[in-house]
Amino acid sequence: MRDTPPSERLILGIDPGTAVTGYGVVARRSDGRVRLVECGVIRTAAGEPLARRIRDVFEGIQSLMERHRPHAAAVEDVFQGKNVRSALTLGHARGAILLAISLHEVPLAEYTAPEVKKAVVGTGRATKDQVGFMVQQQLRLAEAPSPHDAADGVAVALCHSMMGSWPR
Amino acid sequence: MRDTPPSERLILGIDPGTAVTGYGVVARRSDGRVRLVECGVIRTAAGEPLARRIRDVFEGIQSLMERHRPHAAAVEDVFQGKNVRSALTLGHARGAILLAISLHEVPLAEYTAPEVKKAVVGTGRATKDQVGFMVQQQLRLAEAPSPHDAADGVAVALCHSMMGSWPR
Repeated sequence: MRDTPPSERLILGIDPGTAVTGYGVVARRSDGRVRLVECGVIRTAAGEPLARRIRDVFEGIQSLMERHRPHAAAVEDVFQGKNVRSALTLGHARGAILLAISLHEVPLAEYTAPEVKKAVVGTGRATKDQVGFMVQQQLRLAEAPSPHDAADGVAVALCHSMMGSWPR
Repeated sequence: MRDTPPSERLILGIDPGTAVTGYGVVARRSDGRVRLVECGVIRTAAGEPLARRIRDVFEGIQSLMERHRPHAAAVEDVFQGKNVRSALTLGHARGAILLAISLHEVPLAEYTAPEVKKAVVGTGRATKDQVGFMVQQQLRLAEAPSPHDAADGVAVALCHSMMGSWPR
Protein backbone atom coordinates (compact mmCIF):
# COMPACT_ATOMS: atom_id res chain seq x y z
CA MET A 1 0.00 0.00 0.00
CA ARG A 2 1.16 3.50 -0.73
CA ASP A 3 1.83 5.75 2.25
CA THR A 4 1.58 8.90 0.13
CA PRO A 5 -1.44 11.25 0.24
CA PRO A 6 -3.84 10.66 -2.67
CA SER A 7 -2.96 14.07 -4.09
CA GLU A 8 0.68 13.01 -4.56
CA ARG A 9 2.10 11.28 -7.62
CA LEU A 10 5.11 9.03 -7.25
CA ILE A 11 7.74 9.02 -9.97
CA LEU A 12 10.58 6.51 -10.16
CA GLY A 13 13.63 7.81 -12.01
CA ILE A 14 16.41 5.47 -13.13
CA ASP A 15 19.92 6.01 -14.46
CA PRO A 16 20.79 2.54 -15.83
CA GLY A 17 24.18 0.91 -15.60
CA THR A 18 25.55 -2.62 -15.57
CA ALA A 19 27.74 -1.98 -12.51
CA VAL A 20 25.75 0.78 -10.80
CA THR A 21 22.13 1.73 -11.47
CA GLY A 22 21.02 4.91 -9.73
CA TYR A 23 17.41 5.51 -8.76
CA GLY A 24 15.26 8.12 -7.12
CA VAL A 25 11.62 8.12 -6.04
CA VAL A 26 10.10 11.59 -6.04
CA ALA A 27 6.59 12.54 -4.90
CA ARG A 28 4.94 15.45 -6.69
CA ARG A 29 1.99 17.25 -5.15
CA SER A 30 -0.77 18.66 -7.31
CA ASP A 31 0.56 22.17 -6.52
CA GLY A 32 3.85 21.18 -8.13
CA ARG A 33 5.88 20.81 -4.95
CA VAL A 34 8.21 17.83 -4.92
CA ARG A 35 9.77 15.79 -2.14
CA LEU A 36 12.29 12.96 -2.13
CA VAL A 37 10.88 9.64 -0.97
CA GLU A 38 13.96 7.48 -1.48
CA CYS A 39 17.10 7.30 -3.54
CA GLY A 40 20.03 4.95 -3.85
CA VAL A 41 21.91 2.62 -6.14
CA ILE A 42 21.71 -1.01 -7.22
CA ARG A 43 25.23 -2.38 -7.42
CA THR A 44 26.23 -5.58 -9.19
CA ALA A 45 29.42 -7.53 -8.67
CA ALA A 46 31.93 -7.16 -11.51
CA GLY A 47 33.09 -10.76 -11.08
CA GLU A 48 29.64 -12.26 -11.56
CA PRO A 49 28.34 -13.55 -14.93
CA LEU A 50 26.39 -10.96 -16.93
CA ALA A 51 23.14 -12.96 -16.57
CA ARG A 52 23.49 -12.82 -12.77
CA ARG A 53 24.16 -9.07 -12.82
CA ILE A 54 21.16 -8.40 -15.06
CA ARG A 55 19.03 -10.44 -12.70
CA ASP A 56 20.29 -8.38 -9.74
CA VAL A 57 19.31 -5.17 -11.55
CA PHE A 58 15.92 -6.63 -12.49
CA GLU A 59 15.18 -7.80 -8.96
CA GLY A 60 16.31 -4.46 -7.53
CA ILE A 61 13.88 -2.59 -9.77
CA GLN A 62 11.14 -5.15 -9.10
CA SER A 63 11.60 -4.54 -5.39
CA LEU A 64 11.35 -0.75 -5.85
CA MET A 65 8.21 -1.13 -7.98
CA GLU A 66 6.57 -3.34 -5.38
CA ARG A 67 7.57 -1.16 -2.44
CA HIS A 68 6.57 2.21 -3.89
CA ARG A 69 4.06 1.35 -6.65
CA PRO A 70 5.00 4.49 -8.62
CA HIS A 71 2.49 6.15 -10.95
CA ALA A 72 5.15 6.69 -13.59
CA ALA A 73 8.72 5.65 -14.34
CA ALA A 74 11.39 7.51 -16.29
CA VAL A 75 14.60 5.90 -17.54
CA GLU A 76 17.63 7.65 -18.94
CA ASP A 77 18.23 6.88 -22.59
CA VAL A 78 21.68 6.58 -24.08
CA PHE A 79 22.51 7.64 -27.60
CA GLN A 80 26.23 7.63 -27.53
CA GLY A 81 28.58 5.09 -26.05
CA LYS A 82 32.24 4.34 -25.92
CA ASN A 83 31.90 1.40 -28.28
CA VAL A 84 29.57 -1.27 -29.60
CA ARG A 85 30.54 -3.79 -26.92
CA SER A 86 29.85 -1.49 -23.97
CA ALA A 87 26.57 -0.36 -25.57
CA LEU A 88 25.51 -4.00 -25.93
CA THR A 89 26.33 -4.70 -22.26
CA LEU A 90 24.51 -1.58 -21.04
CA GLY A 91 21.56 -2.58 -23.23
CA HIS A 92 21.27 -5.84 -21.27
CA ALA A 93 20.82 -3.98 -17.97
CA ARG A 94 18.53 -1.37 -19.50
CA GLY A 95 16.40 -4.11 -21.06
CA ALA A 96 15.93 -5.72 -17.64
CA ILE A 97 14.87 -2.33 -16.22
CA LEU A 98 12.33 -1.63 -18.98
CA LEU A 99 11.03 -5.17 -18.54
CA ALA A 100 10.44 -4.74 -14.80
CA ILE A 101 8.56 -1.50 -15.48
CA SER A 102 6.51 -3.07 -18.28
CA LEU A 103 5.58 -6.11 -16.17
CA HIS A 104 4.13 -3.70 -13.57
CA GLU A 105 2.16 -1.88 -16.29
CA VAL A 106 3.63 1.46 -15.21
CA PRO A 107 3.77 4.24 -17.87
CA LEU A 108 7.34 4.72 -19.06
CA ALA A 109 9.12 7.86 -20.22
CA GLU A 110 12.66 8.11 -21.58
CA TYR A 111 15.00 11.08 -21.50
CA THR A 112 18.55 11.48 -22.73
CA ALA A 113 21.17 12.72 -20.27
CA PRO A 114 21.26 16.20 -21.91
CA GLU A 115 17.46 16.42 -21.61
CA VAL A 116 17.64 15.57 -17.90
CA LYS A 117 20.43 18.09 -17.30
CA LYS A 118 18.63 20.78 -19.27
CA ALA A 119 15.45 20.25 -17.21
CA VAL A 120 17.16 20.13 -13.81
CA VAL A 121 20.16 22.45 -14.21
CA GLY A 122 19.19 24.54 -17.24
CA THR A 123 22.01 23.35 -19.47
CA GLY A 124 22.45 20.03 -21.25
CA ARG A 125 26.17 20.10 -20.49
CA ALA A 126 25.96 20.35 -16.69
CA THR A 127 28.55 18.53 -14.60
CA LYS A 128 27.67 15.77 -12.15
CA ASP A 129 28.31 18.18 -9.27
CA GLN A 130 25.90 20.72 -10.75
CA VAL A 131 23.23 18.04 -11.11
CA GLY A 132 23.77 16.96 -7.49
CA PHE A 133 23.57 20.57 -6.30
CA MET A 134 20.32 21.32 -8.15
CA VAL A 135 18.73 18.05 -6.96
CA GLN A 136 19.66 19.08 -3.41
CA GLN A 137 18.19 22.57 -3.86
CA GLN A 138 14.95 21.51 -5.48
CA LEU A 139 14.24 18.82 -2.92
CA ARG A 140 15.48 20.91 0.05
CA LEU A 141 17.98 18.24 1.12
CA ALA A 142 20.76 18.74 3.66
CA GLU A 143 23.25 17.57 1.05
CA ALA A 144 23.37 16.23 -2.49
CA PRO A 145 22.45 12.54 -2.86
CA SER A 146 25.49 10.31 -2.95
CA PRO A 147 26.92 8.65 -4.98
CA HIS A 148 26.45 10.64 -8.18
CA ASP A 149 24.47 7.76 -9.70
CA ALA A 150 21.77 8.15 -7.03
CA ALA A 151 21.59 11.90 -7.73
CA ASP A 152 21.32 11.11 -11.45
CA GLY A 153 18.39 8.77 -10.78
CA VAL A 154 16.67 11.49 -8.75
CA ALA A 155 17.36 13.99 -11.54
CA VAL A 156 15.61 11.72 -14.06
CA ALA A 157 12.56 11.56 -11.76
CA LEU A 158 12.63 15.36 -11.26
CA CYS A 159 12.93 15.89 -15.02
CA HIS A 160 9.83 13.77 -15.58
CA SER A 161 7.94 15.55 -12.77
CA MET A 162 8.48 18.83 -14.66
CA MET A 163 7.21 17.55 -17.98
CA GLY A 164 3.60 17.38 -16.86
CA SER A 165 2.87 14.93 -19.63
CA TRP A 166 2.63 11.87 -17.44
CA PRO A 167 -0.82 10.44 -16.67
CA ARG A 168 -2.79 12.08 -13.85
CA MET B 1 6.60 -32.53 -16.86
CA ARG B 2 9.15 -33.48 -19.45
CA ASP B 3 8.07 -35.99 -22.05
CA THR B 4 11.67 -36.90 -22.89
CA PRO B 5 13.27 -40.15 -21.75
CA PRO B 6 15.48 -39.70 -18.68
CA SER B 7 18.56 -40.46 -20.78
CA GLU B 8 17.89 -37.43 -22.97
CA ARG B 9 19.13 -33.93 -22.28
CA LEU B 10 17.18 -30.96 -23.59
CA ILE B 11 19.08 -27.94 -24.87
CA LEU B 12 17.45 -24.64 -25.74
CA GLY B 13 19.41 -22.62 -28.31
CA ILE B 14 18.61 -18.96 -28.96
CA ASP B 15 19.65 -16.48 -31.66
CA PRO B 16 18.57 -13.16 -30.11
CA GLY B 17 17.08 -10.26 -32.01
CA THR B 18 14.81 -7.35 -31.26
CA ALA B 19 12.53 -8.02 -34.24
CA VAL B 20 13.03 -11.79 -34.61
CA THR B 21 14.49 -14.17 -32.03
CA GLY B 22 15.11 -17.67 -33.35
CA TYR B 23 15.08 -20.70 -31.08
CA GLY B 24 15.52 -24.43 -31.23
CA VAL B 25 15.04 -27.17 -28.65
CA VAL B 26 17.25 -30.17 -29.27
CA ALA B 27 17.28 -33.45 -27.33
CA ARG B 28 20.60 -35.23 -27.01
CA ARG B 29 20.75 -38.90 -26.06
CA SER B 30 23.59 -40.24 -23.97
CA ASP B 31 24.94 -42.01 -27.10
CA GLY B 32 25.27 -38.59 -28.73
CA ARG B 33 22.32 -38.84 -31.10
CA VAL B 34 20.29 -35.66 -31.39
CA ARG B 35 16.71 -34.97 -32.39
CA LEU B 36 14.77 -31.77 -32.91
CA VAL B 37 11.99 -31.21 -30.37
CA GLU B 38 10.80 -27.80 -31.54
CA CYS B 39 12.01 -24.73 -33.34
CA GLY B 40 10.55 -21.39 -34.33
CA VAL B 41 10.80 -17.66 -33.91
CA ILE B 42 9.51 -15.02 -31.52
CA ARG B 43 8.51 -11.98 -33.55
CA THR B 44 7.89 -8.52 -32.12
CA ALA B 45 5.99 -5.69 -33.80
CA ALA B 46 8.23 -2.91 -35.14
CA GLY B 47 5.61 -0.28 -34.31
CA GLU B 48 5.46 -1.19 -30.61
CA PRO B 49 7.49 0.61 -27.90
CA LEU B 50 10.82 -1.07 -27.12
CA ALA B 51 9.67 -1.99 -23.59
CA ARG B 52 6.69 -3.87 -25.06
CA ARG B 53 8.89 -5.70 -27.56
CA ILE B 54 11.37 -6.71 -24.86
CA ARG B 55 8.50 -8.02 -22.78
CA ASP B 56 7.25 -10.07 -25.75
CA VAL B 57 10.71 -11.64 -26.13
CA PHE B 58 10.92 -12.28 -22.36
CA GLU B 59 7.48 -13.89 -22.21
CA GLY B 60 8.23 -15.98 -25.30
CA ILE B 61 11.37 -17.38 -23.69
CA GLN B 62 9.59 -17.82 -20.35
CA SER B 63 6.95 -19.87 -22.14
CA LEU B 64 9.60 -22.07 -23.80
CA MET B 65 11.39 -22.59 -20.48
CA GLU B 66 8.17 -23.62 -18.77
CA ARG B 67 7.03 -25.89 -21.58
CA HIS B 68 10.30 -27.75 -22.14
CA ARG B 69 12.22 -27.26 -18.89
CA PRO B 70 15.58 -27.56 -20.71
CA HIS B 71 18.67 -28.84 -18.89
CA ALA B 72 20.82 -26.17 -20.51
CA ALA B 73 20.46 -23.03 -22.58
CA ALA B 74 22.85 -21.50 -25.11
CA VAL B 75 22.56 -17.97 -26.45
CA GLU B 76 24.42 -16.49 -29.38
CA ASP B 77 26.80 -13.72 -28.39
CA VAL B 78 27.46 -10.69 -30.53
CA PHE B 79 30.83 -8.99 -30.71
CA GLN B 80 30.38 -6.79 -33.70
CA GLY B 81 27.43 -4.66 -34.67
CA LYS B 82 26.49 -2.11 -37.23
CA ASN B 83 26.65 0.71 -34.72
CA VAL B 84 26.37 1.64 -31.05
CA ARG B 85 22.63 2.34 -31.28
CA SER B 86 21.71 -1.02 -32.80
CA ALA B 87 23.99 -2.81 -30.32
CA LEU B 88 22.22 -1.05 -27.45
CA THR B 89 18.80 -2.08 -28.79
CA LEU B 90 19.87 -5.68 -29.36
CA GLY B 91 21.32 -5.67 -25.84
CA HIS B 92 17.84 -4.93 -24.45
CA ALA B 93 16.37 -8.06 -26.06
CA ARG B 94 19.37 -10.19 -25.16
CA GLY B 95 19.19 -8.98 -21.55
CA ALA B 96 15.55 -10.11 -21.35
CA ILE B 97 16.56 -13.53 -22.71
CA LEU B 98 19.43 -14.01 -20.23
CA LEU B 99 17.11 -12.88 -17.45
CA ALA B 100 14.43 -15.47 -18.34
CA ILE B 101 17.11 -18.20 -18.33
CA SER B 102 18.60 -16.98 -15.06
CA LEU B 103 15.20 -16.82 -13.34
CA HIS B 104 14.71 -20.50 -14.23
CA GLU B 105 18.15 -21.35 -12.83
CA VAL B 106 19.16 -23.07 -16.06
CA PRO B 107 22.91 -23.25 -16.86
CA LEU B 108 23.79 -20.79 -19.60
CA ALA B 109 26.42 -21.01 -22.33
CA GLU B 110 27.29 -18.33 -24.87
CA TYR B 111 28.77 -18.78 -28.32
CA THR B 112 29.64 -16.25 -31.00
CA ALA B 113 28.15 -16.72 -34.47
CA PRO B 114 31.52 -17.91 -35.90
CA GLU B 115 31.80 -20.47 -33.06
CA VAL B 116 28.33 -21.82 -33.86
CA LYS B 117 29.08 -22.00 -37.59
CA LYS B 118 32.44 -23.65 -36.98
CA ALA B 119 30.79 -26.31 -34.78
CA VAL B 120 27.85 -27.03 -37.09
CA VAL B 121 29.26 -26.43 -40.58
CA GLY B 122 33.01 -26.67 -40.02
CA THR B 123 33.81 -23.09 -40.96
CA GLY B 124 33.18 -19.87 -39.04
CA ARG B 125 32.25 -18.11 -42.26
CA ALA B 126 29.41 -20.40 -43.37
CA THR B 127 26.39 -18.84 -45.09
CA LYS B 128 22.88 -19.01 -43.66
CA ASP B 129 21.96 -21.61 -46.30
CA GLN B 130 24.90 -23.79 -45.28
CA VAL B 131 23.85 -23.56 -41.62
CA GLY B 132 20.28 -24.52 -42.56
CA PHE B 133 21.51 -27.46 -44.65
CA MET B 134 23.76 -28.86 -41.91
CA VAL B 135 21.02 -28.45 -39.28
CA GLN B 136 18.71 -30.40 -41.60
CA GLN B 137 21.31 -33.15 -42.14
CA GLN B 138 22.29 -33.59 -38.52
CA LEU B 139 18.70 -33.72 -37.30
CA ARG B 140 17.47 -35.82 -40.27
CA LEU B 141 14.77 -33.30 -41.18
CA ALA B 142 12.77 -33.28 -44.42
CA GLU B 143 13.90 -29.71 -45.01
CA ALA B 144 15.91 -26.94 -43.34
CA PRO B 145 14.09 -25.08 -40.56
CA SER B 146 12.52 -21.87 -41.79
CA PRO B 147 13.00 -18.94 -41.42
CA HIS B 148 16.79 -18.73 -41.15
CA ASP B 149 16.46 -17.34 -37.60
CA ALA B 150 14.83 -20.60 -36.46
CA ALA B 151 17.65 -22.61 -38.09
CA ASP B 152 20.16 -20.33 -36.36
CA GLY B 153 18.51 -21.01 -32.98
CA VAL B 154 18.71 -24.76 -33.65
CA ALA B 155 22.36 -24.38 -34.69
CA VAL B 156 23.17 -22.73 -31.34
CA ALA B 157 21.55 -25.66 -29.52
CA LEU B 158 23.41 -28.17 -31.73
CA CYS B 159 26.69 -26.34 -31.13
CA HIS B 160 26.18 -26.62 -27.38
CA SER B 161 25.20 -30.30 -27.66
CA MET B 162 28.61 -30.96 -29.24
CA MET B 163 30.61 -29.19 -26.57
CA GLY B 164 29.98 -31.84 -23.94
CA SER B 165 30.80 -29.32 -21.24
CA TRP B 166 27.25 -28.79 -20.09
CA PRO B 167 26.14 -30.40 -16.81
CA ARG B 168 25.02 -34.02 -16.97
